[in-house]
Amino acid sequence: MKFVSYAVEGNETYGVEVEGRILDLAGVDGLPGDLLQGIESGEGFLESVEALLREKGEALSSFAKDEVQWLSPMPTVKRNIMCVGKNYREHAIEMGGEQDIPKNIMIFTKATHTVIGPGETVLHHDDITDELDYEGELAVIIGKKGRGISPEEAMDHVFGYSILNDITARDLQKKHGQFFIGKSLDTTCPMGPFLVTKDEVDDPQNLSITTKVNGEIRQSSNTGQMIFSIPTIISTLSKGMTLLPGDVIATGTPSGVGKGYKPPRFLRKGDVVEIEIEGLGILTNPLQA
Amino acid sequence: MKFVSYAVEGNETYGVEVEGRILDLAGVDGLPGDLLQGIESGEGFLESVEALLREKGEALSSFAKDEVQWLSPMPTVKRNIMCVGKNYREHAIEMGGEQDIPKNIMIFTKATHTVIGPGETVLHHDDITDELDYEGELAVIIGKKGRGISPEEAMDHVFGYSILNDITARDLQKKHGQFFIGKSLDTTCPMGPFLVTKDEVDDPQNLSITTKVNGEIRQSSNTGQMIFSIPTIISTLSKGMTLLPGDVIATGTPSGVGKGYKPPRFLRKGDVVEIEIEGLGILTNPLQA
Repeated sequence: MKFVSYAVEGNETYGVEVEGRILDLAGVDGLPGDLLQGIESGEGFLESVEALLREKGEALSSFAKDEVQWLSPMPTVKRNIMCVGKNYREHAIEMGGEQDIPKNIMIFTKATHTVIGPGETVLHHDDITDELDYEGELAVIIGKKGRGISPEEAMDHVFGYSILNDITARDLQKKHGQFFIGKSLDTTCPMGPFLVTKDEVDDPQNLSITTKVNGEIRQSSNTGQMIFSIPTIISTLSKGMTLLPGDVIATGTPSGVGKGYKPPRFLRKGDVVEIEIEGLGILTNPLQA
Repeated sequence: MKFVSYAVEGNETYGVEVEGRILDLAGVDGLPGDLLQGIESGEGFLESVEALLREKGEALSSFAKDEVQWLSPMPTVKRNIMCVGKNYREHAIEMGGEQDIPKNIMIFTKATHTVIGPGETVLHHDDITDELDYEGELAVIIGKKGRGISPEEAMDHVFGYSILNDITARDLQKKHGQFFIGKSLDTTCPMGPFLVTKDEVDDPQNLSITTKVNGEIRQSSNTGQMIFSIPTIISTLSKGMTLLPGDVIATGTPSGVGKGYKPPRFLRKGDVVEIEIEGLGILTNPLQA
């Protein structure tokens, strides 16, 4: 299923996209009020939604895609977004050199309020950064709580996938040593358009991923190029910390970020960034004009 | 006021400590259900509590300190704890050398579920780390939302202070480059015992801070020794990201951590760590036996 969250006349709700229309779920008896609560409520949630679509699909209230204001699939996240740094070989090299290829998984976080939805405007923050950069990434959404998850069990803990733009102020990232400040400017984590359940993705390590700026391809790779695979990331992260339903893990970006170009090509006011991942749709966001 | 959160017969509640007794607030008409909601509800919250204590103080239900199970002042935090790295000169040097003294503020985060209360047991995680270490710190709790907060305005955004133990797996901190993994093991952020409102603290940059392990003094310093002051931290963090009521900022630890000793003195099973900050009480936590 392709879950979406959206607002209609200012009210936040959620639903599923079926054949180009959005079927509304938030008002349905017995279903949770938002998607995060649904994920938190456990495995029965998906079964309930499937049964509902089978039995009453046509009777549900529905919207055309352009009738609603799209939001991030989880407009309110409970914890910071966890991100894998330098998880594609060629990207690690473009950020410095061979010595930047990590031997061990590197995780930093983005503050919760960085999250915005598809189509929403990214602030340019030009009063504090001259080097705002895009990073197209596959996001993994956790569905089941766990600590000490083995690589073999890891995929059982995945609820689904989305597209995420880990927008980064390169100058602040460098200046402040640890990445948090440069990664946590307001509006710098566009996410969506869908949260696609894992049953719809045959192999998450074999998805083409492309980032365009103003229509020009900047990043073009495949999730098979990750240094650390999704099971390795989940297993490493959960060794000592409990992963929770609704946790978002950004799996790293391929080469072709603005900083990797000579000279660098950072985001300018009015730019439009589009990230496409096979099977997950296209995430498009304009920069503040 | 000294706010506390605690459980009575399994029910979480909160109150204020007055002359050695805890006056219960959670059941009072018109007051929020927990302390975080109180902080989020704005400046009127403190006024309401003050008026209540004045008018009905003796009529409130109350407990002796040992009748309740103490919890972290905010048992559920909404976002990761934000921590300043190497904010005391002598600590930066003990972690490496003069070159480790930061020129710019360094911020990393600890996952939300690391937070535990006073007296609660810290897991030793000896299956994944050989180098678990204590870090006594002054925690600042934000009371008012803001972005682009100037140093001059910064203290207006502070709700109060607490004690925090930023327990760290040194080997994982080093291995994974960015600090998040080594800082986010379950139960490694004891906090409390009180959340003391700022009006009770004359000068937060002149408080003695002491950490003992099994009664032996390991850290002994003063918050006046911070490289980056509280207004500078708040101003820098909020330049591009909105700070929210209930946000917790750990302001860094003085010298004397286990790793600073030659040979290092990491935490062992059964150790007891006590952190005392002038006017804020003592935070005591045992390690798993």
